[in-house]
Amino acid sequence: MIAVYDESNIFAKILRGDLPCHKVYEDEAVLALMDIMPRADGHVLVVPKAPARNILDVEPKVLCELMTRVQKIARAVKGGLGADGVTIQQFNEQAGGQVVFHLHFHILPRWNGVPLRPQSGAAEQPDVLEGFRVRIASALAGN
Amino acid sequence: MIAVYDESNIFAKILRGDLPCHKVYEDEAVLALMDIMPRADGHVLVVPKAPARNILDVEPKVLCELMTRVQKIARAVKGGLGADGVTIQQFNEQAGGQVVFHLHFHILPRWNGVPLRPQSGAAEQPDVLEGFRVRIASALAGN
Repeated sequence: MIAVYDESNIFAKILRGDLPCHKVYEDEAVLALMDIMPRADGHVLVVPKAPARNILDVEPKVLCELMTRVQKIARAVKGGLGADGVTIQQFNEQAGGQVVFHLHFHILPRWNGVPLRPQSGAAEQPDVLEGFRVRIASALAGN
Repeated sequence: MIAVYDESNIFAKILRGDLPCHKVYEDEAVLALMDIMPRADGHVLVVPKAPARNILDVEPKVLCELMTRVQKIARAVKGGLGADGVTIQQFNEQAGGQVVFHLHFHILPRWNGVPLRPQSGAAEQPDVLEGFRVRIASALAGN
């Protein structure tokens, strides 16, 4: 069975402008936004504008465009937040950890000795997200 | 400080043929091999042949070529092993979880209700790795 793209997912709604987000970066190919349930300070998501369920069905061209932005934003996250490293995660299907069924890459800033936080299901305060968003967006603008 | 590529890492040695591996796939751009300390049955690593420390310094063209192979192999892993999902991970710098300093993506087959195993540091039996390797390579050859 081939799983199909369902355009009622939350990232599709954000891409259509039907829901707000803490926007880090946008261009013709991708949107980057703060994860509202961050597992690390400055946790960013990067999503392609083209519809794709996950890495299993995405067009290779869309995946390439997405990854050049993941790289650019990973650098900005590390530089802008003074992180020691970055962890990249991407989940496919429910068993693979996927919750929202529109392809997205997680960019998790990491600091020495600081583990990732467990998935609590609790949303971060908007002003905290906004603080990280501004620092990452500034680093991107300076690159 | 910009970290530089150190060609004494284990993947560079495997790419040079100085060390063996359980090879899943190879072409002009990448080598895919079984992780010898798997966190899931059928855990595969995909590495570019071009030298790159991690996602922070890799050439965008190399990253694109790498990701089209990650996609191809993720599909083969899921199909070949009958997995329910796939988790993709990529670690940058020690704080980000990186242990071998040559860019690599982890492809982790996932089954409903089966968590990833902790990083034990123990190597899997070669015949077990070989069993998974054959099934994934067969799925790749059939695509």
